[in-house]
Amino acid sequence: MNPEQLAQLIDHTNLKPDATEDDIRRLCAEAKRFLFAAVCVHPVYVSLATTLLADSPVQVASVVGFPLGANETNTKAYETKRAIIAGANEIDMVLPIGALKGGKHDVVLNDIRAVVQAAQGAVVKVIIEACLLTDEEKVRACQIAREAGAHFVKTSTGFGAHGARVEDVRLMRQTVGDALGVKAAGGIRTYAQALAMVQAGASRLGTSGSVKIMEESVMSPTRRAWAIPTTFPDETHSHTS
Amino acid sequence: MNPEQLAQLIDHTNLKPDATEDDIRRLCAEAKRFLFAAVCVHPVYVSLATTLLADSPVQVASVVGFPLGANETNTKAYETKRAIIAGANEIDMVLPIGALKGGKHDVVLNDIRAVVQAAQGAVVKVIIEACLLTDEEKVRACQIAREAGAHFVKTSTGFGAHGARVEDVRLMRQTVGDALGVKAAGGIRTYAQALAMVQAGASRLGTSGSVKIMEESVMSPTRRAWAIPTTFPDETHSHTS
Repeated sequence: MNPEQLAQLIDHTNLKPDATEDDIRRLCAEAKRFLFAAVCVHPVYVSLATTLLADSPVQVASVVGFPLGANETNTKAYETKRAIIAGANEIDMVLPIGALKGGKHDVVLNDIRAVVQAAQGAVVKVIIEACLLTDEEKVRACQIAREAGAHFVKTSTGFGAHGARVEDVRLMRQTVGDALGVKAAGGIRTYAQALAMVQAGASRLGTSGSVKIMEESVMSPTRRAWAIPTTFPDETHSHTS
Repeated sequence: MNPEQLAQLIDHTNLKPDATEDDIRRLCAEAKRFLFAAVCVHPVYVSLATTLLADSPVQVASVVGFPLGANETNTKAYETKRAIIAGANEIDMVLPIGALKGGKHDVVLNDIRAVVQAAQGAVVKVIIEACLLTDEEKVRACQIAREAGAHFVKTSTGFGAHGARVEDVRLMRQTVGDALGVKAAGGIRTYAQALAMVQAGASRLGTSGSVKIMEESVMSPTRRAWAIPTTFPDETHSHTS
């Protein structure tokens, strides 16, 4: 995985509650520079990010029902519609965790389905908040997200007890197979962590440490091994040994 | 302050993201038993709590734009309307923290005002999330909340770096005078803490530790001194000495 490939997996994220417009301007400038897959921002900044990224391939992802997922389904659908109108290409929603844990799978299914419909074809990622779930519940959440028509399952909000874990990414990938994307998010701070998530099956990474990760990526011997043409095996070898 | 008076200051709270219907049933049963001022729950549980508390004086408070406050104003207003329709008597909203810190005071004012209007006369408490603000910003937030027609200012969501602090409650009370209520919330676990908040100017307390606080309150020598009729000064004295 060369740096360009890595960048295309990253949702460059600022979901701090006290993020200002200036913070979002910086985020978008960085996203354009590295050509990240998307920026991930709060609903209140979707319009600004859309304007700033209009001349770039970087997508705009908005969170919905974030970060606790305990909003009414109608409100999540409304928030989704508003984000789409404001220019969002992707929606990162939190499923209703209490309903999942209470065994109310029809409530979870309808909740996700309502957001998928409101998103009108835009990519929907379902945050399962793995830190609060048993393995059985993680699997069930992924199955329901798939049944509801979502496009990704995502490990974490970044506001829970822990963020992405390699074993959760692996379990989620095993559950959804090739049908859905898997986004690892929360606590990813280093290139080594990012690589481990990808190797476990992640097809998208959510992180606010993207710039540092890219810098590490460029310096990485592993990266150099992959990036250097295979017609120079000796040089490749010298970098990985 | 006797236990009955203390109970009437408490918003008995369960805002865990993984709270189930059974958890909310327990919360409401406790609220009825102690006659707390209100229960404070996620939007998804307002309807259930309203049904469970229909034959009691306990109010139902719903959170809005919680806990990050970075939702669109329209979405907060929509969520408020839905909560009122579902039976909520009180709305605990989070103000747009990034706008406040960015000096966009008109945005903050309009945001709160939209929720006050959507609440149609129901009590609106504005969570300023003090842990993210300078003292100057705390004062400004309280002034804007008052100008927008809110009924309470509230220290914290309970999801930030710290919860209610005595010095913040004092500053907020100084700022709003008698015009608004002040709700201390987040990290209040003991009777001593509850008492300190009230002495600093809090007129409402948000806590999930309400039952333990009430048990401590009944055992408290301070309370006994206050609760025992003053026609028995010797007995009172024996308990406080």
